[in-house]
Amino acid sequence: MLTFFSGGTGTPKLLMGMKRLLPPEDICVIANTGEDLVQSGVHISPDIDSVVYALAGIIDRDKWYGQRGDTYRTNDALSRLGHDELLRLGDKDRATKIYRTMLLGSGMTLSDATKRICEALGVKEKVYPMSNDKVRTIVRRGQEDLTFNEYWVRDRASGHVDEIVYSGSDHASLPQDAIYDIECSDAIIIGPSNPITSIGPILSIKDAKYFCKEKYTIAVSPIIGSSPLSGPAGRLMNDLGHEVSPLGVANLYDGLIDAIVIDTKDEAYEAILEDRGIKVLRTDIAMKDLYKSKALGRNILDFLVIN
Amino acid sequence: MLTFFSGGTGTPKLLMGMKRLLPPEDICVIANTGEDLVQSGVHISPDIDSVVYALAGIIDRDKWYGQRGDTYRTNDALSRLGHDELLRLGDKDRATKIYRTMLLGSGMTLSDATKRICEALGVKEKVYPMSNDKVRTIVRRGQEDLTFNEYWVRDRASGHVDEIVYSGSDHASLPQDAIYDIECSDAIIIGPSNPITSIGPILSIKDAKYFCKEKYTIAVSPIIGSSPLSGPAGRLMNDLGHEVSPLGVANLYDGLIDAIVIDTKDEAYEAILEDRGIKVLRTDIAMKDLYKSKALGRNILDFLVIN
Repeated sequence: MLTFFSGGTGTPKLLMGMKRLLPPEDICVIANTGEDLVQSGVHISPDIDSVVYALAGIIDRDKWYGQRGDTYRTNDALSRLGHDELLRLGDKDRATKIYRTMLLGSGMTLSDATKRICEALGVKEKVYPMSNDKVRTIVRRGQEDLTFNEYWVRDRASGHVDEIVYSGSDHASLPQDAIYDIECSDAIIIGPSNPITSIGPILSIKDAKYFCKEKYTIAVSPIIGSSPLSGPAGRLMNDLGHEVSPLGVANLYDGLIDAIVIDTKDEAYEAILEDRGIKVLRTDIAMKDLYKSKALGRNILDFLVIN
Repeated sequence: MLTFFSGGTGTPKLLMGMKRLLPPEDICVIANTGEDLVQSGVHISPDIDSVVYALAGIIDRDKWYGQRGDTYRTNDALSRLGHDELLRLGDKDRATKIYRTMLLGSGMTLSDATKRICEALGVKEKVYPMSNDKVRTIVRRGQEDLTFNEYWVRDRASGHVDEIVYSGSDHASLPQDAIYDIECSDAIIIGPSNPITSIGPILSIKDAKYFCKEKYTIAVSPIIGSSPLSGPAGRLMNDLGHEVSPLGVANLYDGLIDAIVIDTKDEAYEAILEDRGIKVLRTDIAMKDLYKSKALGRNILDFLVIN
């Protein structure tokens, strides 16, 4: 079994490839919940849903969130009523959020609610929230504390970020079932998601960090050269004084990873990383289509078998 | 100004006619909230929405609830997830419910939330909930207490009903703004809605009953011969020992009405009603289309001018 630490976009792309290479019982995903929010009365877990929709084969592969072919009738009607939603929810997507909210309201944990949603959508892989405890990623910009979505969606990553805080993580733990599955895993794969706001929140949980040290852990860089593949990773790493490169990513995972997957183009970093005792798999990491996702998955699995 | 006591279907039909005869500031509607419920996390006020959609000209005129041309994407997706909704909400219709829930959640009264929804949908007539206090219609069937929608939608009016209780009405009052508008009204029109579950809850509020006695009040029968025009009125009146006829309706409004509108076909009841001191307007009350709604409205207005 392999455990994946996942945010949105990059890691779901990788999971779509891995799904075609491994039986479902061999895939365990720990999804970031630091960006979770309540909007229009529903509990939104953006990264859990991206992972689940990707594994269910229904994700919108242009936007990498929401469902393919969804409509926006409720969202549009809400705008006409004068209630603009920060995250534009599709109609089918909203149903998932409503269902989760109902399950949580009935007293279920986020982890059990996620399991129920997976069953309903035919996802047999194991998908867990990073915690059933509330952990929220706070973006500190000058005197302001913003949620991730206020920073990224509302303000389009404007202004200089001074600090990122994972509020609540001191007292948060991984879900018990997730701990059991990670213990049974042969390796942990830190997916190619934003190291600061997608993987950072997961690693802020003590158990998660512990397992990275304990298990063979390999990170997939979300950056080629100095260009992040998606999202505000570059912007945030730069603001917080980290080099925007595969090396900067490795620094953020210092002491936690045994190996890193970097792009073919990034030969320059290979020796530096190996000097630091980090094994390097250099391959095409851009995942422009499903074929590329599967090829990257194949290369990672081959690498893991050897190492 | 005229004040209408309204449930769903019949009275909204009449209002669509009245809207074409009177300026908006001359129409005040008190809508039943005894059937209000929370479903999938949203506050549903079926009768308020039917009134508002009818006045906005967007009501589905086949079903007489929900919006014309609405889709059911979220509702269908919820069913696929295993969460069947008792009331099938359309996507645009759900937006109204979400918006109301947000407004109530921000501390607004139902009456102010209704005002805001009316503004957003361009409805200039005054629409009020019968109360900002919680009053719920309970259908007592043997040992069971059901909500109206459990009885009518889920159980399709099966079984013998022993009692109807308007729970909470002892301590409920009309909204303050509504009281002011009723005081300024020339007459109260009890619309052709179910006397037991649509009008009954409104009349269970002390102030509403008081105003019926105080003002010139005219009821429009929702029954022709022994056939109710829609809904479970006949079934419930029969179960509770009331004659299913315009006379049975008049009995339910005993001491509250000055006049009643009955169908042309119901000549048989005219003398009996007039003997009891209730003036009778006999005309076509079926409102099969908008033209008929307007004609009935016209006839009622002419009758009111004379009486």
